[in-house]
Amino acid sequence: MKVIVDAMGGDNAPEAIVEGAVLAAQQSDIDVILVGKGEQILRIIEDLGFKDIPSKIEIVNATQIIEIEDDPANAFRTKSDSSMSVALNLLSEGRGDALISAGSTGALLSAATLIVKRVRGIRRAALAPFIPNTQGGFVLIDCGANSECTPEYLLQFAYMGTFYAQDIMKIKSPRVGLLNNGAEPTKGTPLQLATYELLDNAAKSKTLNFIGNVEAKEAMKGACDVLVCDGFTGNIFLKSLEGMASLIMSELKGIYMQSAKTKLSALLIRKNLSQLKEKLNPDAIGGTPLLGISKPVIKAHGSSNALAIKNAIIQANSAASAHIAAKLSEHIARMKSADD
Amino acid sequence: MKVIVDAMGGDNAPEAIVEGAVLAAQQSDIDVILVGKGEQILRIIEDLGFKDIPSKIEIVNATQIIEIEDDPANAFRTKSDSSMSVALNLLSEGRGDALISAGSTGALLSAATLIVKRVRGIRRAALAPFIPNTQGGFVLIDCGANSECTPEYLLQFAYMGTFYAQDIMKIKSPRVGLLNNGAEPTKGTPLQLATYELLDNAAKSKTLNFIGNVEAKEAMKGACDVLVCDGFTGNIFLKSLEGMASLIMSELKGIYMQSAKTKLSALLIRKNLSQLKEKLNPDAIGGTPLLGISKPVIKAHGSSNALAIKNAIIQANSAASAHIAAKLSEHIARMKSADD
Repeated sequence: MKVIVDAMGGDNAPEAIVEGAVLAAQQSDIDVILVGKGEQILRIIEDLGFKDIPSKIEIVNATQIIEIEDDPANAFRTKSDSSMSVALNLLSEGRGDALISAGSTGALLSAATLIVKRVRGIRRAALAPFIPNTQGGFVLIDCGANSECTPEYLLQFAYMGTFYAQDIMKIKSPRVGLLNNGAEPTKGTPLQLATYELLDNAAKSKTLNFIGNVEAKEAMKGACDVLVCDGFTGNIFLKSLEGMASLIMSELKGIYMQSAKTKLSALLIRKNLSQLKEKLNPDAIGGTPLLGISKPVIKAHGSSNALAIKNAIIQANSAASAHIAAKLSEHIARMKSADD
Repeated sequence: MKVIVDAMGGDNAPEAIVEGAVLAAQQSDIDVILVGKGEQILRIIEDLGFKDIPSKIEIVNATQIIEIEDDPANAFRTKSDSSMSVALNLLSEGRGDALISAGSTGALLSAATLIVKRVRGIRRAALAPFIPNTQGGFVLIDCGANSECTPEYLLQFAYMGTFYAQDIMKIKSPRVGLLNNGAEPTKGTPLQLATYELLDNAAKSKTLNFIGNVEAKEAMKGACDVLVCDGFTGNIFLKSLEGMASLIMSELKGIYMQSAKTKLSALLIRKNLSQLKEKLNPDAIGGTPLLGISKPVIKAHGSSNALAIKNAIIQANSAASAHIAAKLSEHIARMKSADD
């Protein structure tokens, strides 16, 4: 098992990425290819205390870096020797089993779609993070890859999310909900109304366990295992959760700093609090798969630290082992709506 | 100053509504008209320990109740003697200065639009709750009244939100942000792109302090004073916040119940925790105004308790005093886009 890592993508690249890769190679049986500016990567490895490149680590040189300012749709072409482009080409050529990047989401999506290609029959790849809730968690699909969606895309997202949830949550028949502004079938915009019909038909033909519309609040209480929406709505949903989590954490911090009494209170549950923060921390989850691409591509959080990168590499491993792409190919016929 | 209260709307009606109204009448100089099933209201007042109808409280009988199952668009017609319809008619006739209902949002919106009417030139009324954030808070507009919006509606929401924020936050030039999936002007769906242009033009003509696109997470950190979006997106935003708040509160509760040590931790900050809960509790805020209606109409949270109703009545008072509707009329010319 070999994971290709874009060493130059993300806020903390290349230091945190290289360190995370070294940790993953040391703590698991995974081989890693680090793609990026060779000399810089070597120096970081030296700084970590190694005299030579550690075993199970390989370095492939790439002279360019895709920046957040670059046009996502064309960056991989205008910067064909960027770490992201080179890494995706390696994946496409079969030099590794999965790929991780903490670089620009838009660039990764475009480049992965054009270099590694989508599974035949899949209309759009989608980002599918795992979101914690009171019952454990659920798969959100799409969370930002596709701002504009058709009902047919969302039907495919429902199936992709189902296969992914089956693998990572070990549930036979994941409950699929459509994110909406109310539970009634008549809720939402024309997109939700038309999607509801497609999902309902899939439920009737027993190929999907569609349980109906789900409100954002109910999803956090465990209403479903897969929450389907367009990428714009998914982004708002996810970023709102992050915003409220950081508001509450900052309020708690303010409370704890008030007096000796409140400081003692914090001290007594210090471990539990850091566990809670960990649970809510997007970095801890490791990464978000781009479902629908023919080989495993994982987007790590832009602000990933070394730990997050290590986790993402290990998650990339399990995604590859799960053969999601193969499963998509196998079931592609049922993933088309009647209009296709 | 007289506030008309729909005594029969909401999960805890009529008990909590009547109690809240009595509290408001006792604790402020506001007069209240309670509209609903007269005998039931009288019995609740008796149960609260009064031998007679308290001073400053008036009861107007209405024999029907609009239920959550009723078609929101037509409920006020099919149930013309419902507490909500009768209350809105009283407001329209000038029998009171403002109205509060914890009943169906959809029904209240349709009924208020048709009975009390919109300010001339306003295309859609919008729900504008005040959302707490690390810097105090901001006005979200629209949070669910209009699932489908045009850029022109959103331009008007920006102005309505501005006037409202000026009044309740006492800011001269509230910073207006457009809720989007990224900060760059090129972000979003065609709705956000077209709205960005209208808002940007308004900023250029110095009639609006538009600061650009704002991500959900940044809004929670104090990026803007008014956050503009369509009602579908606003609903997802608000319900996600509520969902994450309830997830964290339930996790904290779990932590506190673990042992004697964690129970002591909770005890030490008990007061602070209940203040925090209060801050995040939608009931505490009192109510959400329906901006754009020619007279003040306040939607109280469906699950409002007596305290929330009391607060909503007092807020209705300040909304009426602020003469938002008059301000809208006065500035209606600038609230139209060039295409109008």
